Amino acid sequence: NQHYKITLLPGDGIGPEIMAVTVEVLKVIGQQFNLEFEFQEALMGGAAIDATGNPLPTETLEMCRQSHAVLLAAIGGYKWDNLPREQRPETGLLGLRAGLELFANLRPATILPQLIDASTLKREVVEGVDIMVVRELTGGVYFGQPKGIFSTETGEKRGVNTMAYTEGEIDRIARVGFATAQKRRGKLCSVDKANVLDVSQLWRDRVIAMSQQYPDVELSHLYVDNAAMQLVRSPKQFDTIVTGNLFGDILSDAAAMLTGSIGMLPSASLGEAGKPGVFEPVHGSAPDIAGQDKANPLAQVLSAAMMLRYALDQPQAADQMERAVNQVLDQGYRTGDIMSPGMKAVGCKAMGEALLKI
Amino acid sequence: NQHYKITLLPGDGIGPEIMAVTVEVLKVIGQQFNLEFEFQEALMGGAAIDATGNPLPTETLEMCRQSHAVLLAAIGGYKWDNLPREQRPETGLLGLRAGLELFANLRPATILPQLIDASTLKREVVEGVDIMVVRELTGGVYFGQPKGIFSTETGEKRGVNTMAYTEGEIDRIARVGFATAQKRRGKLCSVDKANVLDVSQLWRDRVIAMSQQYPDVELSHLYVDNAAMQLVRSPKQFDTIVTGNLFGDILSDAAAMLTGSIGMLPSASLGEAGKPGVFEPVHGSAPDIAGQDKANPLAQVLSAAMMLRYALDQPQAADQMERAVNQVLDQGYRTGDIMSPGMKAVGCKAMGEALLKI
Ligand SMILES: CC(C)[C@H](C(=O)O)[C@@H](O)C(=O)O
Ligand SMILES: CC(C)[C@H](C(=O)O)[C@@H](O)C(=O)O
Repeated sequence: NQHYKITLLPGDGIGPEIMAVTVEVLKVIGQQFNLEFEFQEALMGGAAIDATGNPLPTETLEMCRQSHAVLLAAIGGYKWDNLPREQRPETGLLGLRAGLELFANLRPATILPQLIDASTLKREVVEGVDIMVVRELTGGVYFGQPKGIFSTETGEKRGVNTMAYTEGEIDRIARVGFATAQKRRGKLCSVDKANVLDVSQLWRDRVIAMSQQYPDVELSHLYVDNAAMQLVRSPKQFDTIVTGNLFGDILSDAAAMLTGSIGMLPSASLGEAGKPGVFEPVHGSAPDIAGQDKANPLAQVLSAAMMLRYALDQPQAADQMERAVNQVLDQGYRTGDIMSPGMKAVGCKAMGEALLKI
Repeated sequence: NQHYKITLLPGDGIGPEIMAVTVEVLKVIGQQFNLEFEFQEALMGGAAIDATGNPLPTETLEMCRQSHAVLLAAIGGYKWDNLPREQRPETGLLGLRAGLELFANLRPATILPQLIDASTLKREVVEGVDIMVVRELTGGVYFGQPKGIFSTETGEKRGVNTMAYTEGEIDRIARVGFATAQKRRGKLCSVDKANVLDVSQLWRDRVIAMSQQYPDVELSHLYVDNAAMQLVRSPKQFDTIVTGNLFGDILSDAAAMLTGSIGMLPSASLGEAGKPGVFEPVHGSAPDIAGQDKANPLAQVLSAAMMLRYALDQPQAADQMERAVNQVLDQGYRTGDIMSPGMKAVGCKAMGEALLKI
């Protein structure tokens, strides 16, 4: 039996509910594939602020470091929105990314045939869309120094952040982009703003240099404004997108929304090989429906499938979990966010039970 | 008779063709409304690079400064894409913005009922969409110092740009945002990334402070990633959006693409009251169809209408020009980019003639 230590960070809002369902599903998958999961839970986000004053307590980060992988549900909520930035849930998330050096964020945006009508785009435009956004996650304007709010000579305040990338940072994310495209349909689109930004010019030069090592990948480049347009105009043109932290934040959300069902989308944040990654749904903590058994657990379940695939190298177990999600959708089970006429409305727990029957 | 000096910058690609049509339309409008236009043409973009080596010759900037308003068509093309950044057409555009202190960029994204089927979004999602993006245009990461590609201590290169705003820069664009919302449906959405960026925190604080002076405007805030999602999910929720240079670049293009016909969208770039503004279509120079009488001149014509409205304070003449565009569409005239079955296909010149008949 393979033994895996998994740190669970249920977080805030609907987090604990969707995490509970996912753990049950993982246990069953574990039995089927002879995988032994040792789950350990830790505090993060608003829950951690309430308990300790810190959105990412040192023990939490340490526990994550000691595990094979981390499952994160969702963090944040109105309650903590007006705290100073250092004490906000998001700051914990940024700390986790930096602390585990999770430089590569993989965000699939895949149209599920069962849910295609949920898209605000026309069926023929989105049918078959299957995009992977590879976003750099520990650099760029999110972390660049100097940053802060400073006084100018005249006493006026000036807010400053620094958008910066070193060659090494660009190279390591570019490699993930090329390798991801290789395993997919062999097309990589690098997104930057090289017509205006020096940092993007360096980005583009390095990506082009790196492409020599991946002759089987077809590389293209788009400016970020054009990329945002093209996602709306003709999303099927994209296979894999690689881009910086801020552009990836914006484009992966736009791409996710093309599917019309962001309650279904997982993500993976990865560091160097052998280091623990973090797997979490794209959606937020939905405080308005928390504790009411209304949440959709499927993005969390699919995040666990990504964990099996990318962190634990158990592709068959991952396939099985994804198949289970596909089948409950085929059977017509729908939580409120993806409900449509003629389907079977279920809550979070009932969706979990449906998954377990497969 | 009112006398107006208008500088024309036809630029590259289809620029000269769409400018020619627009000038003819302006002449007729001038006769109808007793406005005398003195047109003077200058070089900019690729055309200026070829002639002088500089994408924005000093004489061009000086001529713009001396005029009541500037009509710009489109610049750029493959031909100049591989020149060093200082010699690229885009650099001329940034120089024009800086040189004329055009800090406010107004980009409408309006669905025209005649062209609604061109949208990739479902009719019910985009019907009636009428968004105005107010983008800061002379600050932020486009212009922030320091910037460049530097060597680190280890000899590795680091690309750097600085995303910065002073209180004064934020205040003056916020005022334009509020005033624009007041003249529209009274709703202003400020877009930032205040959960991560210090510069956005200052932005948000100042916009909130400014809102005291506009009690009749309903102010909301979105993070830029969420704004990109919401534009795709439910664009009708937006009236006026105010945001920084980079976010405005991305979001105005995404919003434009919702309409499905960016060949129809104008824009205005404005400085302090009394200083000349620049009016230009959102679309590019389309080098692939240049010189073939295939271009759609309507965005350029609508840009001239914005000039009449915002720079020359001639709202009736502006209305008349917009009505003319509306009517040629009603009559079924379509250039290739907006052609659909059953409509009358015309070229650039014929579209101009149809406009003149109204
Ligand atoms: C919550 C926020 C800090 C975060 C980000 O901007 O990275 C989120 O939007 C995301 O995309 O994971
Ligand atoms: C050409 C480029 C410099 C420009 C910008 O980024 O501002 C363009 O995309 C625009 O939106 O006008």
